[in-house]
Amino acid sequence: MKLVLPPRVSPARFSAALKAFEGVVGKDWVMATDADRDAYSDVYAPGPKDEWPPSAAVAPQTVEEVQAIVRLANEYRTPLWPVSRGKNLGYGTAAPRLPGSVVMDLGRMNRILEVDPKLAYAVLEPGVGFFDLYEHIRRENIPLWLSVPGNGWGSVIGNALEHGIGYTPYGLNGRHLCGIEAVLPQGDLVRTGLGAMKDNPAWHLFPFGYGPTWDLAFSQSNLGVVTKAGMWLMPAPRSSLELSWQIPREEDIAWVIDTIAPLKIAGVIDQNVFIPSWMGALVPLGNRQDFWDKPGAIPESRVQELLKQYNLGYWHVTLRFYGEESVVRAKAEVVKGAMRQHLSTPPQESWWHEGDPIDNYDLTMGVPTVMPLQMSDWVGGRGGHMGFSPVVPATSEHVVGQLKRSRKIIADHDVDFYASFTLGGRFANNVNMLMYDRDKPEQVANIRKLFDALISETAKAGYAEYRTHLGWMDPVMDTFGFNDHALRRFNEKVKDALDPHGILAPGKQGVWPKAYRAEAGVRS
Amino acid sequence: MKLVLPPRVSPARFSAALKAFEGVVGKDWVMATDADRDAYSDVYAPGPKDEWPPSAAVAPQTVEEVQAIVRLANEYRTPLWPVSRGKNLGYGTAAPRLPGSVVMDLGRMNRILEVDPKLAYAVLEPGVGFFDLYEHIRRENIPLWLSVPGNGWGSVIGNALEHGIGYTPYGLNGRHLCGIEAVLPQGDLVRTGLGAMKDNPAWHLFPFGYGPTWDLAFSQSNLGVVTKAGMWLMPAPRSSLELSWQIPREEDIAWVIDTIAPLKIAGVIDQNVFIPSWMGALVPLGNRQDFWDKPGAIPESRVQELLKQYNLGYWHVTLRFYGEESVVRAKAEVVKGAMRQHLSTPPQESWWHEGDPIDNYDLTMGVPTVMPLQMSDWVGGRGGHMGFSPVVPATSEHVVGQLKRSRKIIADHDVDFYASFTLGGRFANNVNMLMYDRDKPEQVANIRKLFDALISETAKAGYAEYRTHLGWMDPVMDTFGFNDHALRRFNEKVKDALDPHGILAPGKQGVWPKAYRAEAGVRS
Repeated sequence: MKLVLPPRVSPARFSAALKAFEGVVGKDWVMATDADRDAYSDVYAPGPKDEWPPSAAVAPQTVEEVQAIVRLANEYRTPLWPVSRGKNLGYGTAAPRLPGSVVMDLGRMNRILEVDPKLAYAVLEPGVGFFDLYEHIRRENIPLWLSVPGNGWGSVIGNALEHGIGYTPYGLNGRHLCGIEAVLPQGDLVRTGLGAMKDNPAWHLFPFGYGPTWDLAFSQSNLGVVTKAGMWLMPAPRSSLELSWQIPREEDIAWVIDTIAPLKIAGVIDQNVFIPSWMGALVPLGNRQDFWDKPGAIPESRVQELLKQYNLGYWHVTLRFYGEESVVRAKAEVVKGAMRQHLSTPPQESWWHEGDPIDNYDLTMGVPTVMPLQMSDWVGGRGGHMGFSPVVPATSEHVVGQLKRSRKIIADHDVDFYASFTLGGRFANNVNMLMYDRDKPEQVANIRKLFDALISETAKAGYAEYRTHLGWMDPVMDTFGFNDHALRRFNEKVKDALDPHGILAPGKQGVWPKAYRAEAGVRS
Repeated sequence: MKLVLPPRVSPARFSAALKAFEGVVGKDWVMATDADRDAYSDVYAPGPKDEWPPSAAVAPQTVEEVQAIVRLANEYRTPLWPVSRGKNLGYGTAAPRLPGSVVMDLGRMNRILEVDPKLAYAVLEPGVGFFDLYEHIRRENIPLWLSVPGNGWGSVIGNALEHGIGYTPYGLNGRHLCGIEAVLPQGDLVRTGLGAMKDNPAWHLFPFGYGPTWDLAFSQSNLGVVTKAGMWLMPAPRSSLELSWQIPREEDIAWVIDTIAPLKIAGVIDQNVFIPSWMGALVPLGNRQDFWDKPGAIPESRVQELLKQYNLGYWHVTLRFYGEESVVRAKAEVVKGAMRQHLSTPPQESWWHEGDPIDNYDLTMGVPTVMPLQMSDWVGGRGGHMGFSPVVPATSEHVVGQLKRSRKIIADHDVDFYASFTLGGRFANNVNMLMYDRDKPEQVANIRKLFDALISETAKAGYAEYRTHLGWMDPVMDTFGFNDHALRRFNEKVKDALDPHGILAPGKQGVWPKAYRAEAGVRS
């Protein structure tokens, strides 16, 4: 990829900035060839990969190096785009929102600073991946389980900061961040919570600060570069039971939600419950051409044949319980009784006890995997995917409404419908996976039109997304219109105060610093 | 109390400001007589009540009125000190940190805007008290339980914002705030989280925003006046079981913590576990003179006599379980087995089932009470209390260390020792109640010296407080010294950006706006 300079930065100033960065991290860790830029572009980009082009990447290894780079970026006015490991697949991977930003790759900051088996937490640098932490914990035989997202090759801290979701009881990973260290946009170093007292041993244990609590202000945020954070982990249970139901019909989602949500809210179900549609079961078995060899969305009649052929329900509900066997058993009986009111087929049951082997692909037991990435192969060719991810209240009324709306829009665009709902308590995250062949421009164009329509129609109905791809960060921020976009004004005021030159991740989640507000595009 | 003007405000400007406030809320709701000032002073003040004097109070009833008052306060440069109901007992009640601030009393904003029985949350204005919400829920027969603090006459939202603690599974109330509306220091109105989209029904359900999440930045904070907030409530359980143990010796706290904390972290115990020392049982029975009629702290030999006489342990552990009877029973058996390793006496057991009456004083079943306030009578005379409240990791090592340190300092000051630990998961909140007779200057002076010593010795050992009385907000902020007080710098930078005239709660938790930084006193 050819060099695109940051706005209003001359080639000479840009070269001087890179030279200065080299002085901090060494020549090897400033990467600015065409191949380097390719490596930091969006591998799944819905469109040409140079739509969100990085100008270079710099990879510091220490907090002091991050501070030095940030200070130089202020001096040379070169915007930085920090990524933990750059694996934000479907949402832009490592690519920056503002063309010409220098990606700050934190992948070399990959130290596991602490794992406390008793108090059940870890202190991690942002470059620590789920696989790294998992291997460490297994190697050291530490009785803790991870909460891993669908695709586990990203950063533990990065995932939590981006509001990622796992499938154990610790599912809303951002809720289990506790105590953050961040380099501020002008290079100062702050620790949140009790970490603001040097060596306070409760830093990563107590979730509030004295005065305002800032941890989550650094999530989905361009207010600081998180250089370490505490993450609560789940004590390894003594036993676990999985119940698994095939739910026959699409419309059954109504009773499924109204049965499971109250049990989740009441704490009978601890797990973050993932409910994928039938596509979830087909994706690992082959590409779409194995199931439907014509263009356009798989028609409903063929879907029904496939369900019969593969013995699948329209939805798949798996519930996992964790803990002492007696408690697990008591909880499972309550849930089975509630499900039985609607579905006479009993669930498949699968017990696990301490010492038993753990399935290598079992997300719900905290094992990282990249198996779900196979969905990128669904359409054939150089596949990519984007996720359309609105949040709705956990009731049948809202879930069915959301399902019907998305389904119709996606059908209208003749795209395969692959929905899932994750029940996190009082809300459900609806993820609609949209797959495309990056080399088919008409497919990509269609997906983009579809994505626009999904955002605007969903907003019209009153619902919002909880994360989105680079290309739609502004349109989604635009949907937050209360009091003439008061939240955006608030974000911008804080941003400008902390980052007067606007060098840190301009445009992240639609928050633009003054210095680049002209680049934000048209606003409502 | 005589009028103390805000810094650098002339009598004429002050009168003009009050007149302008009257234009917004009416004459009746601007209160500026000596008696009014008395009413908004600290009724438990450890020292003269005019040490933290309000100049007046103003009581808006609507969001628009709050906005108008805030704008006028900017115009007239009169600092405001917002309180929800002003019942922050032991921490300053309604009194302001900066002398001459106008208390903004939000007690008239007391609407219960929404209670959703299924999704288990309420939307409340700040003036709604625990008793108000409790009565509403009982009257309407809504199957939800509250999480109430020791003394329940304060505001639900105010308590959560001040990091208050309850004694059900929802104990860390700030963790259950979801979706806030706040008037910013210059009068703009912002909604956090999904509420930034108008009428989004998931506002009070999903705990993150798109972009940075701000909810807890408005806790213990002077960045906005919270005018409404969502609060998650606990679904009423079908049954509940209380286990109660008298724990014989002081040093037994070590095994108690090491037994209970892992079960709490693992989720076998859901409740926020409150472990008071023996004083908790004596306080409702009489004043100290009924148990010890000499001055100075009750000596250890007399303590041992009292424990024998009243059949008390040094500590009292009550654990409550909530939910389906089968699940409750299974969990209780696990906990009883763990406790039996250390204490052969079985616990007292007390079952409750749906429909049974609920004890009017049972905090652990979500009933608000002010019974624990009786401790103010302990010393006789016009009693007051302050709480010294450090947070420590939930292990015997840290808890015993903290206990011994506080105990020695308190004994050295010849004051009765009334400690409790609340186990909230990975941490324990240690509250040391310090009672005094407000009319005995030498008692008050001793308590102040004691409080200074507690803060500095505890900080030296590496631990911090999670809240404190007005008079010690600066010394406690001073203990957060990491990177030359980086957190304070950060707080001040944000504060100055949002509140250029510094009118909102200057000095709150040691965060001072530029306009009043000279009033902050000497800083380390």
